[in-house]
Amino acid sequence: MPEVVVRRLAVYLRILREADLSDNRFVSSAELGEWAGVTPAQVRKDLAMFGEFGKQGVGYQGRNLRDELARILNTDETVAVAIIGMGELGAALARYIQRRHAGNREYPFRAVALFDVDPAKVGVSVEGVAIDHLDALPERVREQKVKLAVVSVPAAAAQAVTDRAVAAGVRAILDFAPVKLRVPPHVRVHYADVSLELHQLAFYL
Amino acid sequence: MPEVVVRRLAVYLRILREADLSDNRFVSSAELGEWAGVTPAQVRKDLAMFGEFGKQGVGYQGRNLRDELARILNTDETVAVAIIGMGELGAALARYIQRRHAGNREYPFRAVALFDVDPAKVGVSVEGVAIDHLDALPERVREQKVKLAVVSVPAAAAQAVTDRAVAAGVRAILDFAPVKLRVPPHVRVHYADVSLELHQLAFYL
Repeated sequence: MPEVVVRRLAVYLRILREADLSDNRFVSSAELGEWAGVTPAQVRKDLAMFGEFGKQGVGYQGRNLRDELARILNTDETVAVAIIGMGELGAALARYIQRRHAGNREYPFRAVALFDVDPAKVGVSVEGVAIDHLDALPERVREQKVKLAVVSVPAAAAQAVTDRAVAAGVRAILDFAPVKLRVPPHVRVHYADVSLELHQLAFYL
Repeated sequence: MPEVVVRRLAVYLRILREADLSDNRFVSSAELGEWAGVTPAQVRKDLAMFGEFGKQGVGYQGRNLRDELARILNTDETVAVAIIGMGELGAALARYIQRRHAGNREYPFRAVALFDVDPAKVGVSVEGVAIDHLDALPERVREQKVKLAVVSVPAAAAQAVTDRAVAAGVRAILDFAPVKLRVPPHVRVHYADVSLELHQLAFYL
């Protein structure tokens, strides 16, 4: 499936997860398109790839569509996430993910393992999860079956922790460090560097 | 300048800001390229767009190049940032930006204005900055000359706060809400939705 389609499906799912879908509510491709910033035709085309769950003139049954999209995007069950690097950003992400998960069962991500090398941080609990030393990563990742990791360490350490995470079975990485990571072909990396985005935006001021 | 070039320049600048550039250190296009994940030829081509500040066989004088890139990307002086929406993510971003700025003069962003509509949050101080009510946004944005805003409100509120920010003079927005924003042509929007990235990555598991 093309990356842009995956992205749009994720947007539709995020929208449906925030929408009020009570009372057997139907959602039209026009509504979804307006929120997602795409045409109704694009919405229908994207969703038609997975079968016909819309009805002409009525739209999509909201909860069905949400559950279908969750299944397609592998988030119909809770997804265990490891966060590697518990500096300002890592700690903020851990709190964000945990509280979202605690507050809403629909939110599928849960930070189950947190890592750092700083002895002052190891053992400290963040939203109920104790920070482990990085050396415990292989064992913890294997026992918790973590496939998705957030890398929020300084640039100089990013490749080394990535190598360890990949060796332990991680298959998708959200990288907040300002470096391009080298990974084997079966591992997917997305980049989400807040400071980098701010730097790019500043150019346009 | 093409968007991809702006992005690469921002990556080079981030790398140089984290690197040890003491002792009049030179940085080669090979070094920069390795960190940034591009070829040395690409690095040289990107930087040659702004004049010849490299020397054949020696590379770039690190501090000069960093300062030149900062000037090109409008981050040679502190950039005032407003954060609209002080939920979990907004608060985390405020702390992250303030602490980075406090800890390192090289970090150019500073959160000077924080907004929310929740009476329980208004007046609360986050890293030394008091949260204002959203109604104060036009006045605060104008008096602080804020051009860059982070939108971290729920999806349903994102367009309305964006309209108010744009009317007050904001020209660049980093949007963490899962909706596409409609803005006039002179306003630039980048999207940085952590949960959306996690959803996309989960697809590849």
